[in-house]
Amino acid sequence: MADGGENGFVRPRIHVLTLGVAELQRSLDFYRALGFESEGIIGTEFPGGAAAMFKLEDGLILALYGRDDLADDANATFDAPGRGEFSIGHLVASREDVDAVLEQAVAAGATLTEEPHDRPWGIYSGYFRDPDGHLWEVIWNPRAALA
Amino acid sequence: MADGGENGFVRPRIHVLTLGVAELQRSLDFYRALGFESEGIIGTEFPGGAAAMFKLEDGLILALYGRDDLADDANATFDAPGRGEFSIGHLVASREDVDAVLEQAVAAGATLTEEPHDRPWGIYSGYFRDPDGHLWEVIWNPRAALA
Repeated sequence: MADGGENGFVRPRIHVLTLGVAELQRSLDFYRALGFESEGIIGTEFPGGAAAMFKLEDGLILALYGRDDLADDANATFDAPGRGEFSIGHLVASREDVDAVLEQAVAAGATLTEEPHDRPWGIYSGYFRDPDGHLWEVIWNPRAALA
Repeated sequence: MADGGENGFVRPRIHVLTLGVAELQRSLDFYRALGFESEGIIGTEFPGGAAAMFKLEDGLILALYGRDDLADDANATFDAPGRGEFSIGHLVASREDVDAVLEQAVAAGATLTEEPHDRPWGIYSGYFRDPDGHLWEVIWNPRAALA
């Protein structure tokens, strides 16, 4: 087993977040409606290779990939409850921006699961699900320095 | 509804990736075993507030949060299949590093779902599930410039 060097074996970094989706084009349209830019669907020349990528700020790539292709690629099943719960946190600069981003997401086809409200740890946030059920939390944190 | 300014409403950025977990301490131990650093469990003074954070390279925060707390926080249920499939992509610098990172993850308690192999779109990768089922793909991409 190779040695990872002085920084430890796994560098503390995530390069890509891949969301399994039912229909690539629908999800691409949804994220474009939120203002994310993509070159569109790529990789159609490979069986199981079709995907769409969004290059985000700070280098992270958000990828959309067919959920069946993801299941095949990972040799994973997604039919058991209690598997892989997560949420994606998106910070905005004001309380009003939380409300407005949630409205924009709903207008683009998202489902609001939780109306925005103040939470005991000092943030104001609400949640939506994208068309495939992926949870996003839109957050205003008055203590956070925002870029 | 507020205006988002010239860059579009939602900035193309993800600030936090929150993984729902069954046992905070177990998951904290697992990710520490992979080499990620954390101050430990915080927020225990708030009902539903206990969490652990890892500050990753490039500013992304990986957060661990009780899956029941996440369900409450988001007013979301996780009992339906087909909800929120995703994977986290982690790039390494060589084919050997893919094998070694997967071995390290398994040694730390992960389950290998897919042995590493070459994929038709030009990468070499394998997948593991963390103790809560979250999928990680460890990737060597000979065409990618690595930091």
